[in-house]
Amino acid sequence: MIIVKIGGGSNINIQGIIADLATITERFLIVHGANALRDKLAKDLGQPKQVLTSVKGYASVYSDEKLLDVMMMAYAGLRNKRIVEQCHQYGINAVGLSGLDGKLIRGKRNRGIRVEKNGKQRIVRDYSGKPEIVNKPLLQMLVDNGYVPVLTVPIIDEQDTAINTENDDVVRVLQKALEADTIINLIEAPGFLEDKDDERSVIRKMSPEELEAREQQVEGRMKRKMLSVRKLFEHGATRVIIGDGRGEHPVADALSGKGTVIA
Amino acid sequence: MIIVKIGGGSNINIQGIIADLATITERFLIVHGANALRDKLAKDLGQPKQVLTSVKGYASVYSDEKLLDVMMMAYAGLRNKRIVEQCHQYGINAVGLSGLDGKLIRGKRNRGIRVEKNGKQRIVRDYSGKPEIVNKPLLQMLVDNGYVPVLTVPIIDEQDTAINTENDDVVRVLQKALEADTIINLIEAPGFLEDKDDERSVIRKMSPEELEAREQQVEGRMKRKMLSVRKLFEHGATRVIIGDGRGEHPVADALSGKGTVIA
Repeated sequence: MIIVKIGGGSNINIQGIIADLATITERFLIVHGANALRDKLAKDLGQPKQVLTSVKGYASVYSDEKLLDVMMMAYAGLRNKRIVEQCHQYGINAVGLSGLDGKLIRGKRNRGIRVEKNGKQRIVRDYSGKPEIVNKPLLQMLVDNGYVPVLTVPIIDEQDTAINTENDDVVRVLQKALEADTIINLIEAPGFLEDKDDERSVIRKMSPEELEAREQQVEGRMKRKMLSVRKLFEHGATRVIIGDGRGEHPVADALSGKGTVIA
Repeated sequence: MIIVKIGGGSNINIQGIIADLATITERFLIVHGANALRDKLAKDLGQPKQVLTSVKGYASVYSDEKLLDVMMMAYAGLRNKRIVEQCHQYGINAVGLSGLDGKLIRGKRNRGIRVEKNGKQRIVRDYSGKPEIVNKPLLQMLVDNGYVPVLTVPIIDEQDTAINTENDDVVRVLQKALEADTIINLIEAPGFLEDKDDERSVIRKMSPEELEAREQQVEGRMKRKMLSVRKLFEHGATRVIIGDGRGEHPVADALSGKGTVIA
Protein backbone atom coordinates (compact mmCIF):
# COMPACT_ATOMS: atom_id res chain seq x y z
CA MET A 1 0.00 0.00 0.00
CA ILE A 2 1.26 3.42 -1.03
CA ILE A 3 -0.03 6.63 0.53
CA VAL A 4 0.25 9.58 -1.85
CA LYS A 5 0.03 12.94 -0.17
CA ILE A 6 -0.74 15.80 -2.56
CA GLY A 7 0.26 19.17 -1.15
CA GLY A 8 -2.18 22.05 -1.17
CA GLY A 9 0.01 24.56 -2.99
CA SER A 10 -1.25 26.31 -6.10
CA ASN A 11 1.54 24.98 -8.37
CA ILE A 12 0.94 21.29 -7.74
CA ASN A 13 0.28 19.42 -11.02
CA ILE A 14 -2.75 17.41 -9.93
CA GLN A 15 -3.52 16.10 -13.40
CA GLY A 16 0.07 14.88 -13.81
CA ILE A 17 -0.11 13.11 -10.46
CA ILE A 18 -3.38 11.38 -11.34
CA ALA A 19 -2.14 10.37 -14.80
CA ASP A 20 0.90 8.77 -13.15
CA LEU A 21 -1.21 7.02 -10.51
CA ALA A 22 -3.38 5.49 -13.23
CA THR A 23 -0.35 3.43 -14.34
CA ILE A 24 0.55 2.07 -10.90
CA THR A 25 -0.22 -1.56 -10.10
CA GLU A 26 0.20 -1.38 -6.32
CA ARG A 27 -2.74 -0.33 -4.17
CA PHE A 28 -2.73 3.29 -3.10
CA LEU A 29 -4.79 5.97 -1.47
CA ILE A 30 -4.64 9.72 -1.72
CA VAL A 31 -4.51 12.36 1.02
CA HIS A 32 -4.67 15.91 -0.25
CA GLY A 33 -4.42 19.47 1.01
CA ALA A 34 -5.95 22.68 -0.33
CA ASN A 35 -4.29 25.45 1.68
CA ALA A 36 -3.77 27.84 -1.25
CA LEU A 37 -7.41 27.39 -2.25
CA ARG A 38 -8.58 27.84 1.35
CA ASP A 39 -6.56 31.03 1.81
CA LYS A 40 -7.87 32.49 -1.44
CA LEU A 41 -11.47 31.59 -0.63
CA ALA A 42 -11.20 33.00 2.89
CA LYS A 43 -9.79 36.22 1.46
CA ASP A 44 -12.46 36.43 -1.26
CA LEU A 45 -15.12 35.99 1.42
CA GLY A 46 -13.60 38.75 3.52
CA GLN A 47 -12.37 36.47 6.31
CA PRO A 48 -8.59 36.40 5.83
CA LYS A 49 -6.58 33.78 7.68
CA GLN A 50 -5.69 34.64 11.26
CA VAL A 51 -2.51 33.28 12.77
CA LEU A 52 -2.11 32.68 16.51
CA THR A 53 1.34 32.88 18.04
CA SER A 54 1.74 31.09 21.34
CA VAL A 55 3.80 32.55 24.18
CA LYS A 56 6.40 29.89 23.30
CA GLY A 57 6.60 31.31 19.77
CA TYR A 58 4.80 28.62 17.79
CA ALA A 59 2.52 29.91 15.03
CA SER A 60 -0.71 28.19 13.97
CA VAL A 61 -3.81 29.02 11.90
CA TYR A 62 -6.72 30.13 14.08
CA SER A 63 -9.43 27.61 13.17
CA ASP A 64 -12.71 29.15 14.28
CA GLU A 65 -16.12 27.98 13.08
CA LYS A 66 -15.98 30.20 10.01
CA LEU A 67 -12.57 28.86 9.02
CA LEU A 68 -13.92 25.33 9.37
CA ASP A 69 -16.77 26.30 7.01
CA VAL A 70 -14.21 27.57 4.50
CA MET A 71 -12.16 24.39 4.92
CA MET A 72 -15.19 22.23 4.24
CA MET A 73 -15.74 24.21 1.05
CA ALA A 74 -12.11 24.22 -0.13
CA TYR A 75 -10.80 20.82 1.03
CA ALA A 76 -13.80 18.48 1.31
CA GLY A 77 -15.75 20.32 -1.39
CA LEU A 78 -14.01 21.83 -4.38
CA ARG A 79 -10.55 20.25 -4.24
CA ASN A 80 -11.73 16.82 -3.17
CA LYS A 81 -14.48 16.55 -5.78
CA ARG A 82 -12.34 17.88 -8.64
CA ILE A 83 -9.64 15.31 -7.75
CA VAL A 84 -12.27 12.56 -7.66
CA GLU A 85 -13.63 13.71 -11.03
CA GLN A 86 -10.14 13.70 -12.59
CA CYS A 87 -9.41 10.27 -11.11
CA HIS A 88 -12.45 8.83 -12.89
CA GLN A 89 -11.28 10.45 -16.13
CA TYR A 90 -8.09 8.39 -15.78
CA GLY A 91 -9.91 5.20 -14.81
CA ILE A 92 -9.25 5.44 -11.06
CA ASN A 93 -12.44 4.56 -9.16
CA ALA A 94 -12.09 7.26 -6.51
CA VAL A 95 -14.29 7.88 -3.48
CA GLY A 96 -13.69 11.22 -1.76
CA LEU A 97 -14.12 11.35 2.00
CA SER A 98 -13.31 13.71 4.84
CA GLY A 99 -12.31 12.49 8.28
CA LEU A 100 -15.89 13.16 9.38
CA ASP A 101 -17.43 10.57 7.06
CA GLY A 102 -18.05 7.34 8.93
CA LYS A 103 -15.78 8.89 11.60
CA LEU A 104 -12.94 7.94 9.28
CA ILE A 105 -10.32 9.91 11.22
CA ARG A 106 -11.02 10.57 14.87
CA GLY A 107 -8.88 12.90 16.89
CA LYS A 108 -8.52 14.89 20.07
CA ARG A 109 -9.27 18.58 20.11
CA ASN A 110 -6.53 20.88 21.34
CA ARG A 111 -7.19 22.29 24.80
CA GLY A 112 -6.09 25.77 23.81
CA ILE A 113 -3.15 27.94 22.98
CA ARG A 114 -1.66 30.34 25.49
CA VAL A 115 -1.30 33.74 23.84
CA GLU A 116 -0.36 37.16 25.11
CA LYS A 117 -2.35 40.26 24.27
CA ASN A 118 -1.77 43.72 25.73
CA GLY A 119 0.58 42.21 28.29
CA LYS A 120 -2.01 39.72 29.53
CA GLN A 121 -1.94 35.99 28.93
CA ARG A 122 -5.07 34.07 27.99
CA ILE A 123 -6.00 30.69 26.54
CA VAL A 124 -7.55 30.68 23.07
CA ARG A 125 -9.34 27.50 22.04
CA ASP A 126 -10.19 26.78 18.42
CA TYR A 127 -11.42 23.84 16.35
CA SER A 128 -8.10 22.11 15.85
CA GLY A 129 -6.54 18.95 17.16
CA LYS A 130 -4.56 15.79 16.51
CA PRO A 131 -5.75 12.66 14.69
CA GLU A 132 -5.57 9.44 16.69
CA ILE A 133 -7.83 6.66 15.38
CA VAL A 134 -8.61 5.49 11.84
CA ASN A 135 -11.83 3.67 10.90
CA LYS A 136 -9.83 0.92 9.29
CA PRO A 137 -12.82 -1.38 8.49
CA LEU A 138 -14.41 1.34 6.36
CA LEU A 139 -11.19 2.08 4.46
CA GLN A 140 -10.41 -1.62 4.04
CA MET A 141 -13.92 -2.31 2.77
CA LEU A 142 -13.54 0.40 0.12
CA VAL A 143 -10.06 -0.70 -0.92
CA ASP A 144 -11.03 -4.41 -1.01
CA ASN A 145 -13.87 -3.50 -3.36
CA GLY A 146 -11.64 -1.66 -5.82
CA TYR A 147 -12.21 1.91 -4.68
CA VAL A 148 -9.40 4.42 -4.17
CA PRO A 149 -10.06 6.61 -1.11
CA VAL A 150 -9.30 10.29 -1.62
CA LEU A 151 -9.06 11.73 1.87
CA THR A 152 -8.84 15.18 3.39
CA VAL A 153 -9.59 17.26 6.46
CA PRO A 154 -11.54 18.09 8.57
CA ILE A 155 -11.53 15.19 11.01
CA ILE A 156 -13.89 14.49 13.93
CA ASP A 157 -13.08 14.94 17.62
CA GLU A 158 -14.16 13.02 20.73
CA GLN A 159 -17.31 15.19 21.03
CA ASP A 160 -18.20 14.52 17.34
CA THR A 161 -17.21 18.05 16.35
CA ALA A 162 -15.36 18.85 13.14
CA ILE A 163 -11.76 19.94 13.73
CA ASN A 164 -8.86 21.04 11.59
CA THR A 165 -5.61 19.13 11.72
CA GLU A 166 -2.32 18.75 9.86
CA ASN A 167 -2.55 16.44 6.85
CA ASP A 168 0.93 15.19 7.72
CA ASP A 169 -0.53 13.85 10.95
CA VAL A 170 -3.42 12.29 9.02
CA VAL A 171 -0.86 10.49 6.84
CA ARG A 172 0.90 9.29 9.98
CA VAL A 173 -2.19 7.63 11.50
CA LEU A 174 -3.21 6.19 8.12
CA GLN A 175 0.25 4.70 7.59
CA LYS A 176 0.10 2.99 10.95
CA ALA A 177 -3.46 1.69 10.51
CA LEU A 178 -2.93 0.39 6.98
CA GLU A 179 0.70 -0.65 7.44
CA ALA A 180 1.60 1.27 4.29
CA ASP A 181 5.21 0.66 3.26
CA THR A 182 5.67 3.67 0.97
CA ILE A 183 4.69 7.30 1.46
CA ILE A 184 5.03 9.75 -1.42
CA ASN A 185 4.81 13.34 -0.23
CA LEU A 186 4.43 15.72 -3.19
CA ILE A 187 5.31 19.31 -2.41
CA GLU A 188 6.25 22.56 -4.16
CA ALA A 189 9.98 21.86 -4.04
CA PRO A 190 12.25 19.28 -5.65
CA GLY A 191 12.69 17.48 -2.32
CA PHE A 192 14.31 18.13 1.03
CA LEU A 193 16.76 20.98 0.49
CA GLU A 194 20.11 21.37 2.19
CA ASP A 195 19.71 25.13 1.65
CA LYS A 196 16.03 26.13 1.58
CA ASP A 197 16.75 28.95 -0.88
CA ASP A 198 18.57 26.74 -3.38
CA GLU A 199 16.46 24.23 -5.30
CA ARG A 200 19.63 22.55 -6.54
CA SER A 201 20.56 21.56 -3.00
CA VAL A 202 18.22 18.50 -2.89
CA ILE A 203 19.43 15.78 -0.58
CA ARG A 204 18.95 12.64 -2.68
CA LYS A 205 19.14 10.00 0.02
CA MET A 206 18.67 10.07 3.73
CA SER A 207 18.50 7.35 6.35
CA PRO A 208 15.69 7.38 8.91
CA GLU A 209 18.39 7.74 11.56
CA GLU A 210 19.45 11.11 10.10
CA LEU A 211 15.98 12.60 10.46
CA GLU A 212 16.34 13.84 14.02
CA ALA A 213 19.48 15.80 13.17
CA ARG A 214 17.84 17.20 9.99
CA GLU A 215 14.86 18.32 12.07
CA GLN A 216 17.17 20.60 14.01
CA GLN A 217 18.39 22.15 10.73
CA VAL A 218 15.01 23.47 9.62
CA GLU A 219 12.38 25.89 10.86
CA GLY A 220 8.64 26.39 11.23
CA ARG A 221 6.32 24.14 9.25
CA MET A 222 9.21 22.14 7.79
CA LYS A 223 10.33 21.20 11.29
CA ARG A 224 6.92 19.71 12.01
CA LYS A 225 6.97 17.92 8.65
CA MET A 226 10.31 16.29 9.45
CA LEU A 227 8.98 15.17 12.82
CA SER A 228 5.99 13.56 11.03
CA VAL A 229 8.34 11.76 8.66
CA ARG A 230 10.38 10.44 11.58
CA LYS A 231 7.24 9.06 13.22
CA LEU A 232 6.32 7.19 10.01
CA PHE A 233 9.43 5.07 10.40
CA GLU A 234 8.65 4.41 14.06
CA HIS A 235 5.43 2.77 12.90
CA GLY A 236 6.84 0.57 10.18
CA ALA A 237 7.13 2.59 6.98
CA THR A 238 10.07 1.44 4.89
CA ARG A 239 10.30 4.29 2.40
CA VAL A 240 9.28 7.95 2.40
CA ILE A 241 9.81 9.96 -0.78
CA ILE A 242 9.58 13.74 -0.73
CA GLY A 243 8.99 14.59 -4.37
CA ASP A 244 8.32 17.57 -6.60
CA GLY A 245 4.56 17.93 -7.16
CA ARG A 246 5.08 20.52 -9.89
CA GLY A 247 6.69 18.42 -12.62
CA GLU A 248 5.12 16.63 -15.56
CA HIS A 249 5.32 13.21 -13.87
CA PRO A 250 5.42 13.80 -10.13
CA VAL A 251 4.69 10.21 -9.03
CA ALA A 252 6.78 8.46 -11.69
CA ASP A 253 9.68 10.78 -10.88
CA ALA A 254 9.35 10.14 -7.17
CA LEU A 255 9.24 6.36 -7.64
CA SER A 256 12.27 6.47 -9.95
CA GLY A 257 14.35 8.06 -7.24
CA LYS A 258 14.10 11.78 -7.92
CA GLY A 259 13.41 13.95 -4.91
CA THR A 260 14.53 12.92 -1.45
CA VAL A 261 14.32 9.21 -0.70
CA ILE A 262 14.36 8.33 2.97
CA ALA A 263 14.80 4.60 3.45
CA MET B 1 -36.00 1.93 3.19
CA ILE B 2 -36.93 5.60 3.56
CA ILE B 3 -35.36 8.33 1.44
CA VAL B 4 -35.34 11.69 3.21
CA LYS B 5 -34.86 14.65 0.94
CA ILE B 6 -33.81 17.81 2.75
CA GLY B 7 -34.51 20.93 0.72
CA GLY B 8 -31.83 23.55 0.23
CA GLY B 9 -33.77 26.54 1.53
CA SER B 10 -32.34 28.72 4.27
CA ASN B 11 -35.21 28.08 6.72
CA ILE B 12 -34.96 24.30 6.79
CA ASN B 13 -34.43 23.03 10.37
CA ILE B 14 -31.62 20.59 9.70
CA GLN B 15 -30.93 19.89 13.35
CA GLY B 16 -34.61 19.09 13.97
CA ILE B 17 -34.62 16.72 11.01
CA ILE B 18 -31.52 14.90 12.22
CA ALA B 19 -32.81 14.67 15.80
CA ASP B 20 -35.99 13.07 14.45
CA LEU B 21 -34.07 10.67 12.21
CA ALA B 22 -32.03 9.49 15.18
CA THR B 23 -35.21 7.96 16.64
CA ILE B 24 -36.27 6.06 13.50
CA THR B 25 -35.85 2.29 13.41
CA GLU B 26 -36.28 1.79 9.67
CA ARG B 27 -33.28 2.15 7.36
CA PHE B 28 -32.97 5.50 5.65
CA LEU B 29 -30.67 7.63 3.56
CA ILE B 30 -30.49 11.37 3.10
CA VAL B 31 -30.39 13.44 -0.09
CA HIS B 32 -29.90 17.15 0.48
CA GLY B 33 -29.85 20.40 -1.41
CA ALA B 34 -28.03 23.66 -0.69
CA ASN B 35 -29.45 26.13 -3.19
CA ALA B 36 -29.72 29.06 -0.77
CA LEU B 37 -26.12 28.49 0.33
CA ARG B 38 -24.97 28.15 -3.27
CA ASP B 39 -26.68 31.37 -4.34
CA LYS B 40 -25.22 33.29 -1.39
CA LEU B 41 -21.72 31.92 -2.01
CA ALA B 42 -21.90 32.66 -5.73
CA LYS B 43 -22.99 36.22 -4.93
CA ASP B 44 -20.28 36.69 -2.27
CA LEU B 45 -17.70 35.52 -4.81
CA GLY B 46 -18.97 37.96 -7.38
CA GLN B 47 -20.43 35.33 -9.72
CA PRO B 48 -24.20 35.71 -9.26
CA LYS B 49 -26.46 32.98 -10.61
CA GLN B 50 -27.29 33.23 -14.30
CA VAL B 51 -30.59 31.92 -15.57
CA LEU B 52 -31.07 30.67 -19.13
CA THR B 53 -34.50 30.88 -20.70
CA SER B 54 -35.09 28.56 -23.62
CA VAL B 55 -37.01 29.64 -26.68
CA LYS B 56 -39.85 27.45 -25.36
CA GLY B 57 -39.92 29.53 -22.17
CA TYR B 58 -38.34 27.09 -19.69
CA ALA B 59 -35.92 28.66 -17.21
CA SER B 60 -32.85 26.88 -15.80
CA VAL B 61 -29.69 27.78 -13.91
CA TYR B 62 -26.70 28.19 -16.21
CA SER B 63 -24.23 25.64 -14.83
CA ASP B 64 -20.84 26.66 -16.17
CA GLU B 65 -17.53 25.43 -14.76
CA LYS B 66 -17.46 28.18 -12.14
CA LEU B 67 -20.96 27.37 -10.95
CA LEU B 68 -19.93 23.73 -10.64
CA ASP B 69 -17.00 24.86 -8.48
CA VAL B 70 -19.42 26.80 -6.27
CA MET B 71 -21.74 23.78 -6.11
CA MET B 72 -18.91 21.53 -5.01
CA MET B 73 -18.16 24.01 -2.24
CA ALA B 74 -21.76 24.57 -1.12
CA TYR B 75 -23.38 21.15 -1.63
CA ALA B 76 -20.61 18.55 -1.44
CA GLY B 77 -18.47 20.67 0.88
CA LEU B 78 -20.04 22.87 3.53
CA ARG B 79 -23.65 21.61 3.65
CA ASN B 80 -22.78 17.94 3.24
CA LYS B 81 -20.04 17.91 5.87
CA ARG B 82 -22.03 19.92 8.43
CA ILE B 83 -24.96 17.50 8.02
CA VAL B 84 -22.58 14.55 8.45
CA GLU B 85 -21.11 16.19 11.57
CA GLN B 86 -24.56 16.79 13.07
CA CYS B 87 -25.62 13.22 12.25
CA HIS B 88 -22.71 11.89 14.30
CA GLN B 89 -23.69 14.16 17.17
CA TYR B 90 -27.06 12.38 17.18
CA GLY B 91 -25.54 8.92 16.85
CA ILE B 92 -26.20 8.50 13.12
CA ASN B 93 -23.13 6.99 11.43
CA ALA B 94 -23.25 9.17 8.33
CA VAL B 95 -21.03 9.01 5.24
CA GLY B 96 -21.32 12.02 2.94
CA LEU B 97 -20.92 11.40 -0.78
CA SER B 98 -21.55 13.25 -4.02
CA GLY B 99 -22.69 11.51 -7.17
CA LEU B 100 -19.07 11.62 -8.36
CA ASP B 101 -17.75 9.39 -5.59
CA GLY B 102 -17.44 5.83 -6.81
CA LYS B 103 -19.60 7.05 -9.75
CA LEU B 104 -22.47 6.80 -7.31
CA ILE B 105 -24.92 8.62 -9.61
CA ARG B 106 -24.21 8.50 -13.32
CA GLY B 107 -26.15 10.62 -15.75
CA LYS B 108 -26.35 11.98 -19.24
CA ARG B 109 -25.26 15.52 -19.97
CA ASN B 110 -27.81 17.80 -21.63
CA ARG B 111 -27.04 18.50 -25.28
CA GLY B 112 -27.80 22.17 -24.96
CA ILE B 113 -30.53 24.72 -24.59
CA ARG B 114 -31.79 26.76 -27.52
CA VAL B 115 -31.82 30.40 -26.52
CA GLU B 116 -32.47 33.61 -28.40
CA LYS B 117 -30.19 36.61 -28.12
CA ASN B 118 -30.45 39.77 -30.19
CA GLY B 119 -32.94 38.06 -32.49
CA LYS B 120 -30.58 35.13 -33.19
CA GLN B 121 -31.01 31.61 -31.92
CA ARG B 122 -28.08 29.61 -30.63
CA ILE B 123 -27.46 26.48 -28.57
CA VAL B 124 -25.89 26.97 -25.14
CA ARG B 125 -24.41 23.88 -23.51
CA ASP B 126 -23.60 23.78 -19.83
CA TYR B 127 -22.61 21.19 -17.23
CA SER B 128 -26.08 19.88 -16.44
CA GLY B 129 -27.93 16.69 -17.15
CA LYS B 130 -30.18 13.90 -15.94
CA PRO B 131 -29.26 11.06 -13.56
CA GLU B 132 -29.74 7.55 -14.93
CA ILE B 133 -27.74 4.89 -13.10
CA VAL B 134 -27.02 4.33 -9.39
CA ASN B 135 -23.97 2.44 -8.12
CA LYS B 136 -26.20 0.23 -6.02
CA PRO B 137 -23.45 -2.15 -4.79
CA LEU B 138 -21.59 0.78 -3.18
CA LEU B 139 -24.71 2.14 -1.49
CA GLN B 140 -25.82 -1.33 -0.40
CA MET B 141 -22.37 -2.08 1.02
CA LEU B 142 -22.47 1.09 3.11
CA VAL B 143 -26.05 0.53 4.31
CA ASP B 144 -25.41 -3.15 5.09
CA ASN B 145 -22.49 -2.10 7.26
CA GLY B 146 -24.51 0.36 9.31
CA TYR B 147 -23.63 3.59 7.52
CA VAL B 148 -26.19 6.20 6.54
CA PRO B 149 -25.38 7.71 3.13
CA VAL B 150 -25.80 11.49 2.93
CA LEU B 151 -25.94 12.25 -0.78
CA THR B 152 -25.84 15.37 -2.90
CA VAL B 153 -24.96 16.76 -6.30
CA PRO B 154 -22.94 17.01 -8.52
CA ILE B 155 -23.24 13.71 -10.36
CA ILE B 156 -20.98 12.27 -13.10
CA ASP B 157 -21.78 12.08 -16.81
CA GLU B 158 -20.91 9.52 -19.49
CA GLN B 159 -17.58 11.30 -20.16
CA ASP B 160 -16.72 11.27 -16.42
CA THR B 161 -17.37 14.98 -16.11
CA ALA B 162 -19.12 16.54 -13.11
CA ILE B 163 -22.59 17.82 -13.94
CA ASN B 164 -25.37 19.57 -12.06
CA THR B 165 -28.79 17.97 -11.86
CA GLU B 166 -32.09 18.25 -9.98
CA ASN B 167 -32.04 16.53 -6.59
CA ASP B 168 -35.62 15.44 -7.23
CA ASP B 169 -34.33 13.39 -10.14
CA VAL B 170 -31.56 11.98 -7.95
CA VAL B 171 -34.23 10.85 -5.49
CA ARG B 172 -36.12 9.24 -8.35
CA VAL B 173 -33.20 7.06 -9.51
CA LEU B 174 -32.31 6.20 -5.92
CA GLN B 175 -35.87 5.14 -5.14
CA LYS B 176 -35.90 2.84 -8.11
CA ALA B 177 -32.48 1.33 -7.42
CA LEU B 178 -33.09 0.77 -3.71
CA GLU B 179 -36.80 -0.01 -3.99
CA ALA B 180 -37.50 2.52 -1.26
CA ASP B 181 -41.14 2.44 -0.17
CA THR B 182 -41.33 5.86 1.50
CA ILE B 183 -40.01 9.23 0.35
CA ILE B 184 -40.10 12.22 2.72
CA ASN B 185 -39.59 15.48 0.88
CA LEU B 186 -38.96 18.32 3.34
CA ILE B 187 -39.53 21.78 1.89
CA GLU B 188 -40.16 25.35 2.99
CA ALA B 189 -43.95 24.99 2.97
CA PRO B 190 -46.43 22.96 5.01
CA GLY B 191 -47.05 20.63 2.08
CA PHE B 192 -48.63 20.79 -1.36
CA LEU B 193 -50.81 23.89 -1.37
CA GLU B 194 -54.13 24.25 -3.15
CA ASP B 195 -53.39 27.98 -3.32
CA LYS B 196 -49.64 28.65 -3.40
CA ASP B 197 -50.07 31.93 -1.53
CA ASP B 198 -52.06 30.42 1.34
CA GLU B 199 -50.16 28.12 3.71
CA ARG B 200 -53.48 27.00 5.23
CA SER B 201 -54.51 25.43 1.93
CA VAL B 202 -52.47 22.24 2.39
CA ILE B 203 -53.91 19.25 0.63
CA ARG B 204 -53.71 16.51 3.29
CA LYS B 205 -54.16 13.44 1.14
CA MET B 206 -53.71 12.75 -2.51
CA SER B 207 -53.82 9.60 -4.58
CA PRO B 208 -51.01 8.90 -7.08
CA GLU B 209 -53.70 8.99 -9.78
CA GLU B 210 -54.43 12.66 -8.99
CA LEU B 211 -50.85 13.74 -9.58
CA GLU B 212 -51.11 14.33 -13.30
CA ALA B 213 -54.06 16.68 -12.87
CA ARG B 214 -52.30 18.48 -9.99
CA GLU B 215 -49.23 18.94 -12.19
CA GLN B 216 -51.33 21.03 -14.56
CA GLN B 217 -52.38 23.26 -11.65
CA VAL B 218 -48.89 24.44 -10.75
CA GLU B 219 -46.08 26.36 -12.41
CA GLY B 220 -42.30 26.44 -12.83
CA ARG B 221 -40.16 24.42 -10.44
CA MET B 222 -43.20 22.97 -8.65
CA LYS B 223 -44.44 21.48 -11.94
CA ARG B 224 -41.18 19.60 -12.33
CA LYS B 225 -41.37 18.47 -8.70
CA MET B 226 -44.84 17.03 -9.20
CA LEU B 227 -43.64 15.18 -12.29
CA SER B 228 -40.78 13.68 -10.22
CA VAL B 229 -43.27 12.56 -7.58
CA ARG B 230 -45.43 10.91 -10.21
CA LYS B 231 -42.46 8.97 -11.54
CA LEU B 232 -41.69 7.68 -8.04
CA PHE B 233 -44.99 5.80 -8.06
CA GLU B 234 -44.30 4.41 -11.52
CA HIS B 235 -41.23 2.74 -10.04
CA GLY B 236 -42.83 1.21 -6.97
CA ALA B 237 -42.90 3.82 -4.19
CA THR B 238 -45.93 3.34 -1.97
CA ARG B 239 -45.88 6.63 -0.05
CA VAL B 240 -44.52 10.10 -0.72
CA ILE B 241 -44.84 12.72 2.00
CA ILE B 242 -44.27 16.39 1.24
CA GLY B 243 -43.59 17.85 4.67
CA ASP B 244 -42.64 21.12 6.31
CA GLY B 245 -38.87 21.24 6.83
CA ARG B 246 -39.13 24.33 9.02
CA GLY B 247 -40.90 22.92 12.07
CA GLU B 248 -39.47 21.59 15.31
CA HIS B 249 -39.99 17.94 14.29
CA PRO B 250 -40.09 17.83 10.50
CA VAL B 251 -39.67 14.05 10.11
CA ALA B 252 -41.89 13.02 13.04
CA ASP B 253 -44.60 15.39 11.78
CA ALA B 254 -44.34 14.04 8.24
CA LEU B 255 -44.57 10.42 9.43
CA SER B 256 -47.57 11.24 11.65
CA GLY B 257 -49.51 12.48 8.66
CA LYS B 258 -48.93 16.22 8.64
CA GLY B 259 -48.07 17.72 5.29
CA THR B 260 -49.29 16.16 2.07
CA VAL B 261 -49.41 12.38 2.04
CA ILE B 262 -49.56 10.83 -1.41
CA ALA B 263 -50.35 7.14 -1.17
